[in-house]
Amino acid sequence: MEEKKVLCVGLVCLDIINVVDRYPEEDTDSRCLSQRWQRGGNASNSCTVLSLLGAPCAFMGSLSAGPVANFILEDFQKFNIDMSLVSEHAHCVLPASMVISNVSTGSRTILHMNRNLPDVTAEDFSKVDLKQFKWIHWEGRNAEEQVKMIQRVVTYNSTLPQQQKITISVEIEKTREPLYQLFPHGDVVFVSKDVARHFGFQSAEAALKGLYNRVKQGAVLVCAWAEKGADALGPDGVIVHSDAFPPETLVDTLGAGDTFNASVIYTLSNGGSLQEALTFGCRVAGRKCGFHGYDGICKDFTGELH
Amino acid sequence: MEEKKVLCVGLVCLDIINVVDRYPEEDTDSRCLSQRWQRGGNASNSCTVLSLLGAPCAFMGSLSAGPVANFILEDFQKFNIDMSLVSEHAHCVLPASMVISNVSTGSRTILHMNRNLPDVTAEDFSKVDLKQFKWIHWEGRNAEEQVKMIQRVVTYNSTLPQQQKITISVEIEKTREPLYQLFPHGDVVFVSKDVARHFGFQSAEAALKGLYNRVKQGAVLVCAWAEKGADALGPDGVIVHSDAFPPETLVDTLGAGDTFNASVIYTLSNGGSLQEALTFGCRVAGRKCGFHGYDGICKDFTGELH
Repeated sequence: MEEKKVLCVGLVCLDIINVVDRYPEEDTDSRCLSQRWQRGGNASNSCTVLSLLGAPCAFMGSLSAGPVANFILEDFQKFNIDMSLVSEHAHCVLPASMVISNVSTGSRTILHMNRNLPDVTAEDFSKVDLKQFKWIHWEGRNAEEQVKMIQRVVTYNSTLPQQQKITISVEIEKTREPLYQLFPHGDVVFVSKDVARHFGFQSAEAALKGLYNRVKQGAVLVCAWAEKGADALGPDGVIVHSDAFPPETLVDTLGAGDTFNASVIYTLSNGGSLQEALTFGCRVAGRKCGFHGYDGICKDFTGELH
Repeated sequence: MEEKKVLCVGLVCLDIINVVDRYPEEDTDSRCLSQRWQRGGNASNSCTVLSLLGAPCAFMGSLSAGPVANFILEDFQKFNIDMSLVSEHAHCVLPASMVISNVSTGSRTILHMNRNLPDVTAEDFSKVDLKQFKWIHWEGRNAEEQVKMIQRVVTYNSTLPQQQKITISVEIEKTREPLYQLFPHGDVVFVSKDVARHFGFQSAEAALKGLYNRVKQGAVLVCAWAEKGADALGPDGVIVHSDAFPPETLVDTLGAGDTFNASVIYTLSNGGSLQEALTFGCRVAGRKCGFHGYDGICKDFTGELH
């Protein structure tokens, strides 16, 4: 029997990363040290990391046609990510997000595109063959539709013995009111530092205690806090913590959060404990900040880091 | 007999133009109002404008293979620009220049790529069939090679009656010492405000008087000075001037200089006087600053503006 996959539902986009040694002043001409094109988007990045760690995975999201889409599809392929659930929209444009990555400070300045692509709907999701998956992760976007998708999985799960149920995780990263309806729908809920601070919390621990009443019974709430590491709170009421593992030199923090999420999902979906998952998440995300992109993450990592 | 063409030799690249209403602060996330992909590069832009004005033209330059190159080739085609002299380099990357265009201030901030494509050589140029051209314009880049190309045209011209000779123009835009060797090689020499100031001149008129001794006998030296308009000096020693024609609202100054050059070349190559060429150059370039891109320039312009 084929190994069951992790499915990530969310965004894919093109990031054009411009590496500079000085942030450009307005109305000047300057020169990049280098430039690279990278497939981006939270769910898409998490797929990359899952795949590099050795977990079979699939991405579900929408894409335009055209040269950028070709670049993205080739990149999914390169990382062995199942893209059979990617829907192409021929008449939409897929613009790129510009990233200015300053090697002198480690800062990354992002100019997001205006995306005119429709998000995946519950209708699209109703056609997905759920049997192939052991874990489905939603990057919070069109939350109302996403709740409907999750309800389909809950119904499907209700017919199955415990060990065959699909684990549901959600990520609430952006400070947008409609996304907060996702809290009670994940078995594992990732809440960002941004959202935590938006609710008035000044630490991961405070956020977990303050927000745990929003998740469903038995769920795990996870909150990463950059260089302070990450905390998690499960149904036993015990706060679990891991310190961060910063690299010797901070090179590229872009996608560090997506790397953390993927590494936590990887560990939990392979039977690891919550403490193991957090520590592994912080280790892989920390390492990732020491190099550009994701190629430095490899299968060997998993043996070394567990 | 087919109408003879204008050939522009120089750079083509991809400009990704991000329109914002506020210049992004370092290490923040913000959203563009819009984004567009535009074929860029001085010589390539001048071809666009020549073609829109109704002059048959060709571009000579190098290009990588891949999705960006496809975008660029399609765009040349769309504007009816002969690209038979474009050389493709399969193993080079063609990165994009990032432009942040601020609608609140009209500023444009450019992050140039590092280009690893070889420039066109005299060897490449030796294969060009010169019969098809009435004017060849060089964007100053690999000046030493470009001087050799020009010498080929001079030799070719020496066998022809006056009215069949190819007019030679050069653009010296960047403040780079090796480019200054181009001064004595153009029948028409465009020198930028940047270069003029680099030589210590505080006005177009001063620059023309101070730099005219560098051009060859009989040549015309042209210097545009943004909102101050443009001046030119020919062998009769009379400085010709045109005021600028700023649009009601400054929308997009990117490529205004290339538009000016193309409009001057258009007028002179069709038998217009130096004064007509300058005035037309300022009018078209000014208008161009009132809209995004070049599509607003059209053939009707020429009737209206002459």
